[in-house]
Amino acid sequence: MLRRLASRCARSLGTRGGARPAAGLRHLGRSPRRRASDAPRNQPPSSEVVARPVGVCSMMRLPLQASPQGLDAAFVGVPLDIGTSNRPGARFGPRRIREESVMLRTTNPSTGALPFQSLSVADLGDVNVNLYNLQDSCRLIREAYQKIVAAGCIPLTLGGDHTITYPILQAIAKKHGPVGLLHVDAHTDTADKALGEKVYHGTPFRRCVDEGLLDRKRVVQIGIRGSAMTLDPYRYSWSQGFRLVLAEDCWMKSLVPLMGEVRQQMGGKPMYISFDIDGLDPAYAPGTGTPEIAGLTPSQALEIIRGCQGLNVVGCDLVEVSPPYDPSVKKINLLLHTLQT
Amino acid sequence: MLRRLASRCARSLGTRGGARPAAGLRHLGRSPRRRASDAPRNQPPSSEVVARPVGVCSMMRLPLQASPQGLDAAFVGVPLDIGTSNRPGARFGPRRIREESVMLRTTNPSTGALPFQSLSVADLGDVNVNLYNLQDSCRLIREAYQKIVAAGCIPLTLGGDHTITYPILQAIAKKHGPVGLLHVDAHTDTADKALGEKVYHGTPFRRCVDEGLLDRKRVVQIGIRGSAMTLDPYRYSWSQGFRLVLAEDCWMKSLVPLMGEVRQQMGGKPMYISFDIDGLDPAYAPGTGTPEIAGLTPSQALEIIRGCQGLNVVGCDLVEVSPPYDPSVKKINLLLHTLQT
Amino acid sequence: MLRRLASRCARSLGTRGGARPAAGLRHLGRSPRRRASDAPRNQPPSSEVVARPVGVCSMMRLPLQASPQGLDAAFVGVPLDIGTSNRPGARFGPRRIREESVMLRTTNPSTGALPFQSLSVADLGDVNVNLYNLQDSCRLIREAYQKIVAAGCIPLTLGGDHTITYPILQAIAKKHGPVGLLHVDAHTDTADKALGEKVYHGTPFRRCVDEGLLDRKRVVQIGIRGSAMTLDPYRYSWSQGFRLVLAEDCWMKSLVPLMGEVRQQMGGKPMYISFDIDGLDPAYAPGTGTPEIAGLTPSQALEIIRGCQGLNVVGCDLVEVSPPYDPSVKKINLLLHTLQT
Amino acid sequence: MLRRLASRCARSLGTRGGARPAAGLRHLGRSPRRRASDAPRNQPPSSEVVARPVGVCSMMRLPLQASPQGLDAAFVGVPLDIGTSNRPGARFGPRRIREESVMLRTTNPSTGALPFQSLSVADLGDVNVNLYNLQDSCRLIREAYQKIVAAGCIPLTLGGDHTITYPILQAIAKKHGPVGLLHVDAHTDTADKALGEKVYHGTPFRRCVDEGLLDRKRVVQIGIRGSAMTLDPYRYSWSQGFRLVLAEDCWMKSLVPLMGEVRQQMGGKPMYISFDIDGLDPAYAPGTGTPEIAGLTPSQALEIIRGCQGLNVVGCDLVEVSPPYDPSVKKINLLLHTLQT
Amino acid sequence: MLRRLASRCARSLGTRGGARPAAGLRHLGRSPRRRASDAPRNQPPSSEVVARPVGVCSMMRLPLQASPQGLDAAFVGVPLDIGTSNRPGARFGPRRIREESVMLRTTNPSTGALPFQSLSVADLGDVNVNLYNLQDSCRLIREAYQKIVAAGCIPLTLGGDHTITYPILQAIAKKHGPVGLLHVDAHTDTADKALGEKVYHGTPFRRCVDEGLLDRKRVVQIGIRGSAMTLDPYRYSWSQGFRLVLAEDCWMKSLVPLMGEVRQQMGGKPMYISFDIDGLDPAYAPGTGTPEIAGLTPSQALEIIRGCQGLNVVGCDLVEVSPPYDPSVKKINLLLHTLQT
Amino acid sequence: MLRRLASRCARSLGTRGGARPAAGLRHLGRSPRRRASDAPRNQPPSSEVVARPVGVCSMMRLPLQASPQGLDAAFVGVPLDIGTSNRPGARFGPRRIREESVMLRTTNPSTGALPFQSLSVADLGDVNVNLYNLQDSCRLIREAYQKIVAAGCIPLTLGGDHTITYPILQAIAKKHGPVGLLHVDAHTDTADKALGEKVYHGTPFRRCVDEGLLDRKRVVQIGIRGSAMTLDPYRYSWSQGFRLVLAEDCWMKSLVPLMGEVRQQMGGKPMYISFDIDGLDPAYAPGTGTPEIAGLTPSQALEIIRGCQGLNVVGCDLVEVSPPYDPSVKKINLLLHTLQT
Repeated sequence: MLRRLASRCARSLGTRGGARPAAGLRHLGRSPRRRASDAPRNQPPSSEVVARPVGVCSMMRLPLQASPQGLDAAFVGVPLDIGTSNRPGARFGPRRIREESVMLRTTNPSTGALPFQSLSVADLGDVNVNLYNLQDSCRLIREAYQKIVAAGCIPLTLGGDHTITYPILQAIAKKHGPVGLLHVDAHTDTADKALGEKVYHGTPFRRCVDEGLLDRKRVVQIGIRGSAMTLDPYRYSWSQGFRLVLAEDCWMKSLVPLMGEVRQQMGGKPMYISFDIDGLDPAYAPGTGTPEIAGLTPSQALEIIRGCQGLNVVGCDLVEVSPPYDPSVKKINLLLHTLQT
Repeated sequence: MLRRLASRCARSLGTRGGARPAAGLRHLGRSPRRRASDAPRNQPPSSEVVARPVGVCSMMRLPLQASPQGLDAAFVGVPLDIGTSNRPGARFGPRRIREESVMLRTTNPSTGALPFQSLSVADLGDVNVNLYNLQDSCRLIREAYQKIVAAGCIPLTLGGDHTITYPILQAIAKKHGPVGLLHVDAHTDTADKALGEKVYHGTPFRRCVDEGLLDRKRVVQIGIRGSAMTLDPYRYSWSQGFRLVLAEDCWMKSLVPLMGEVRQQMGGKPMYISFDIDGLDPAYAPGTGTPEIAGLTPSQALEIIRGCQGLNVVGCDLVEVSPPYDPSVKKINLLLHTLQT
Repeated sequence: MLRRLASRCARSLGTRGGARPAAGLRHLGRSPRRRASDAPRNQPPSSEVVARPVGVCSMMRLPLQASPQGLDAAFVGVPLDIGTSNRPGARFGPRRIREESVMLRTTNPSTGALPFQSLSVADLGDVNVNLYNLQDSCRLIREAYQKIVAAGCIPLTLGGDHTITYPILQAIAKKHGPVGLLHVDAHTDTADKALGEKVYHGTPFRRCVDEGLLDRKRVVQIGIRGSAMTLDPYRYSWSQGFRLVLAEDCWMKSLVPLMGEVRQQMGGKPMYISFDIDGLDPAYAPGTGTPEIAGLTPSQALEIIRGCQGLNVVGCDLVEVSPPYDPSVKKINLLLHTLQT
Repeated sequence: MLRRLASRCARSLGTRGGARPAAGLRHLGRSPRRRASDAPRNQPPSSEVVARPVGVCSMMRLPLQASPQGLDAAFVGVPLDIGTSNRPGARFGPRRIREESVMLRTTNPSTGALPFQSLSVADLGDVNVNLYNLQDSCRLIREAYQKIVAAGCIPLTLGGDHTITYPILQAIAKKHGPVGLLHVDAHTDTADKALGEKVYHGTPFRRCVDEGLLDRKRVVQIGIRGSAMTLDPYRYSWSQGFRLVLAEDCWMKSLVPLMGEVRQQMGGKPMYISFDIDGLDPAYAPGTGTPEIAGLTPSQALEIIRGCQGLNVVGCDLVEVSPPYDPSVKKINLLLHTLQT
Repeated sequence: MLRRLASRCARSLGTRGGARPAAGLRHLGRSPRRRASDAPRNQPPSSEVVARPVGVCSMMRLPLQASPQGLDAAFVGVPLDIGTSNRPGARFGPRRIREESVMLRTTNPSTGALPFQSLSVADLGDVNVNLYNLQDSCRLIREAYQKIVAAGCIPLTLGGDHTITYPILQAIAKKHGPVGLLHVDAHTDTADKALGEKVYHGTPFRRCVDEGLLDRKRVVQIGIRGSAMTLDPYRYSWSQGFRLVLAEDCWMKSLVPLMGEVRQQMGGKPMYISFDIDGLDPAYAPGTGTPEIAGLTPSQALEIIRGCQGLNVVGCDLVEVSPPYDPSVKKINLLLHTLQT
Repeated sequence: MLRRLASRCARSLGTRGGARPAAGLRHLGRSPRRRASDAPRNQPPSSEVVARPVGVCSMMRLPLQASPQGLDAAFVGVPLDIGTSNRPGARFGPRRIREESVMLRTTNPSTGALPFQSLSVADLGDVNVNLYNLQDSCRLIREAYQKIVAAGCIPLTLGGDHTITYPILQAIAKKHGPVGLLHVDAHTDTADKALGEKVYHGTPFRRCVDEGLLDRKRVVQIGIRGSAMTLDPYRYSWSQGFRLVLAEDCWMKSLVPLMGEVRQQMGGKPMYISFDIDGLDPAYAPGTGTPEIAGLTPSQALEIIRGCQGLNVVGCDLVEVSPPYDPSVKKINLLLHTLQT
């Protein structure tokens, strides 16, 4: 059976600056299955050997693979944006994230993480969405993720607007039962409906609660601001247990203490990370559909991601990346960077 | 009953350069209703009196009006882009077209046209579309246009992706019966379906034929190129009668002779003009969703529009204007200019 | 007579997160005039009912109105930029601010403010400036604002370069006498002249002092940096009483304590807020004419605006927004957001 | 005394492709003064010797010089844009034109022209305009050009909005008397006033006629379109003699025959060339303030400029270049190229 | 042995509009090897089945393949730009061309060409260039292409600056001997050296002549303009036989007659097509390093490419595509479109 | 002999806000040579006298000068980018930095620094690099800087990618011996080689150590993050003594205490400042080649620069400014601002 992504990542983490674990130590945690085959794992090519502009842009230039079989984790793109309420463009998010990922390296020098030494990772390409029908796209996504999850592969999603997290969590909960949720966003995305529709990028987590996909005692939302919808769930019984961390409660603060509490709250049970790029201030991530000022900083984002070390992460996504609104594409490095954590 | 837009425009046309009809002549064609009231008509403000950056951007800064009653023609925005197969953004087309329309003047000095002397025109704002459901948006558009058309007002549409022409023509044909069609575009938009859907921006005219909304002997498509779908309708009986004018048949040619033939073909019966901005070469109109090289030039576009003088136009649209892809916004003047013809 | 904007806003503020005042409480502060008519006030349409791309862009899609009669406050655009010393473009500030305002909601969930329940607000459109004559534009602005202020309506200005604050304060002081000033900016704008001219965007507050429009003991300038002019007023008797808060004194600090002092200093007498977008660091607001690095953050800007709660604000402006220099338009949300405070 | 620029250029022209005149021939036309000194003339550095990104950007990287003494012709920048009626930005025109001029070479291979062998040319920098006062800027420009013209130096102007041509022609006519005018533009720029002002970028040629600066029998306007003002001068006696060539009369045509007529009309008497970049279609020159569709092509522009060979050109300008609206800066090569003709 | 690309393309061409050959006819020309295997060839996915934003961007979303074995032709990227003399960025050309290629279809409706029915084509990814050493990059390119050519696969190159054509032609001539050249460009690229270097993007064809890689009687250069270097080769014996077609000789003309002559000149012997995107006017292709005005139009480019039908093309390239200078990416469709010819 | 730049700057610093030294005091530190000549020093023109858009853009519009003789310090551009591993464009860094420098003033009001009263400064233009050969460019740079340094002039470099610091330090160490280094960057730039090359923008400081150009006990690197290379030097004996300050150790902290330590470490011996713009977070400086998230803020950058007061600075550079990736050019002010410190 599948070993947890996060614990494996944790095992490969050294301590920064001083004594760092020898490479050998990192292999202690490898599963027997891996040890048996002893096959070399996929590695992003180093820019010392392959120039950065070279090559077709799969994620981190990892191998493209049609099947999730044998993978510990895999990148999956969901190029959908017809659930967005303001600026479109997130359909091109997966493409641009892959393009910018040539800057990523196999090691994170700050944390010492060497994820590709302990995990088999590939790029599974994109889910073929139905651009003209949001409901049908949700079905296509759910079915695609059910196959990925059934193969014991952790999906690392490149979005896509936030609607997609709903069918992804349907697939994940089908395997793992109700999961914890670490949700970074400017908005709670818990509206009930808009323009008469129950499914769009403002409602995914309301639908997840409706269907019992979330373990409500282990739901944390960080970076919330700017929305009339923000506080609604906290008035109703259905959202009992959700923890809300407003952006203004994060201003000019380290989030390391918060993440200590989050780790406690999540415990060892399965959890999902959903990172809406608009959780960040638009100065850092202008290319998104519904920007709100006074958001999180990249260093806080890194504290959040690094703070997940040791948790039982069964899936994650980076959503709402809309390249047409980021002419210098400076934001997209974020999640990429955090993947190295 | 309503008098025709085009004949009225025709009446207001003088001959360039030399003797131009006195203002009084232009009033001969006015309907008794107008003459009776003798009320001054809406006029865009001159930039000699109101600076161009001044004012909230209705179309040509004409009055905003909630009802079509009493109007000969009206601008209507349809900010929808979830039917697009490639780049989105046309949802912001109406907004940007209005913004650029401050450059338009009340008179077209080349043709002598003074449309606002003989026609009552206003801006009716936008149809409230359902951004998350294409089928439902079609219903909303159809219903809104039925009301406009029922009031005897000619709708001048600011799109929006090309899907919208389908429900607009449903409304128009309900009043006028099957209409002629002058369709400027890079694509025939006569596919049967894509990704399993019958309705998206590649199928409007196939659906119109299916429902008998077009007078097939009076359908002309100009500027077609670059699409596997292009020639399909011409192989099948359902499209019998369509006239196809490929872009390559227009290269480096005046389209004045072609328009003479088109006027013959259209005769005096009701017709609709659908102008997809991608009929133009992307050098002139980069801000669009599915650009194709080697298209029409603006001078050819003007020849087409001016060539409609005297025709019985019961509606028109400019679609597929996607502002995020036009950083210098140079294209948008096109239809605006042609509106003065 | 007019009741104060700020105190009314204050009254409509609940406490975040926990018990929030019932809607009824908010009506206690309503003026008899309002209570009598009991007419529903203007409300921006919710994006759950009207899609964000829909509609002609008045500010927050509030009604456009020609007269200030009966309004508590009104948005007014001043599309002028011929007073700028470096990059132009602020003439398009009002247009773009209105366009971005579709993201704003009627409630601010962080503060609980419901401004449109207690205040009648509309959009009065733009002052018709003289684009070719700065002095004459000042006259036109002054006269337009005199009418607005005379009607008991608080002007909320969308600029425009900073020159415009001078004639606005002429109009305001004519009614209220010398006012306090909360001025957020990278520059003091207290130069005496440049290129031989006494009026341009570097001199408005010097001119205001010259004419006795400011209550110098209640003038605070926040965010100042980068200018040879910065410290000049503090050397001279004419600026005696001005309080200067350099940007470097704000670095990595909450401004809540500062605003406590400012509230003390302002007391209950009339004051004006002038917010130059370049007070912010250009990372957050690149679209401006004379950017200076190391400025304020959006969270500090919100602290400043929220810190004005309870003050007697008789007018405010957001100036120096130059859209051509902000390709992703991320900055403009700022003031809009703060309007909800 | 000064010998004519154009005849000198003409003399240095060979015939393309076949036998080309030996370098010696080109010197036949040199003035005795030049021959006597025999000093080497300024030459732009070749990109084979100095890399294109190298160097501070004077025009063509020619020497910067404070005085016009001893020069046959000189580049002069006029960074003014407060006379523009729509988009500003032309104040940065001179800077960007100089920047792009690194692409220019000393020889025009198509025409064989070697202007720098027969003419002494330098860059005189910019006129110091008053950015806050249009009338005063006109005075500053007029005075600066009077000095240049008095020195026998032909000014080659880099604008700047079209207002500047008015004071330039005041200076030129003071020396040469009424001059002929070859005016390429989308607009006639012969309005009488706007927003109450007699001087802005829509009126320069009306003012010139008012003051007798133009020889009205030798005024040709090419590329006119899109403006209510277009045909006005042709109705009035004051413009008797002006020749109007509408853009639509140029569509898909070579302008070589037209220029033959223009050369006849101009004869050997002094003439001025004023080239508004918006004479071109905005596809070729998006970075301008008041774009109009369906304009001239670059090949037509070259035909116009080359068609001036042999004329008695006493000054020329390229105006209305607004870099913020041309993100890829493709247009600016135009005049530069033509300078080599 | 390899059958010729062009003749095969020719065989698959029907006649437009009227009677078109049945699909079966197109198979007559297939080589026995193909017929024997009867294996289905690679096909780009249709946008009716796979949405355009979906998938990792190989060229036309064809399969990525490491080896050229068994391919008739293959796309190859060469992401190099350190040979450019002005604006860099062409290192990202291959990536962006692949991204835009999602708009291409398997059939060209204008010509009826069905290239993927008769040819096995894949994407071989990029040559791993040495970004810091131009000479070494040339070696790497030459060696990579020798392998491709040796396998009987025709390389279709996505550049990269024009330097790369030199090592490509070294590889091609090694197999085929001196080849004919159809060269579309603004510049002749026949300089001898610059800044002391013999190899950069201004010299490839001079080097090719030096090494006897070209059959000089079959060299045609089309679109030349704007360069002091332009006419140099035509003065010297080493370039005897080159045919020069200046851009100005193409203005407002169909190039169909010219291509008839070119086909004659090329005959049935091997030839190479090198298409520098700056051969086009920068209005159509702004994203390039050394733009020159008054270039070819896309329709002329299509005439050139279609005019090659029936020729013995042993390789081709599209070079000098510099995406950072084309914010709306409108140009890149060009070659893609022509690939369908 | 030359007096030190930094001590002179120090002497001209007053204390902010309160009592500021009289201008006379600042002259005490002037060298006898200066006092003797008593010639007025170069001064950037004030924007109160010369409008900011006016003039050819030398750095701060200081005089352009061919020789370093008699200068205390000089700006020098090095427009080279062929050593960059990802996005190019830094070849245009010097040009754009000069363009933006019109915003700089002669006085820094925060610090009271008046550098141009005590130092003779000019702009020496650019080093003529070899764009096609990185090794040769290094030679050209080294030779140019040897002349500048030999003249007793402190070079203030406008880059250019980071490769250039290597030959600059060769020139500097030739005169001063091994120097201290304050290095602000996202990367350590101490790789040994890439793609087989020892010289590119990832290796300059490794090469400097190899050649003994650095005093390793006085090397501080600040802002490091995101690179597999980051920590390598700290594992090896060759880098013994380097001090590493990771970006994450700077998050949300003032760097004033750090700079106190740095001043101690540097002492009074010669040191060099190398400021890679990517040391800043890309929100503040998007226009760079290898951006990494979560970097320094502008206020921290100012603290670093101001913290150098009193040090014996013998040269400094600002590198990796790539204008094509910064459409709003907000970043470039940074170093300019710091020059006033």
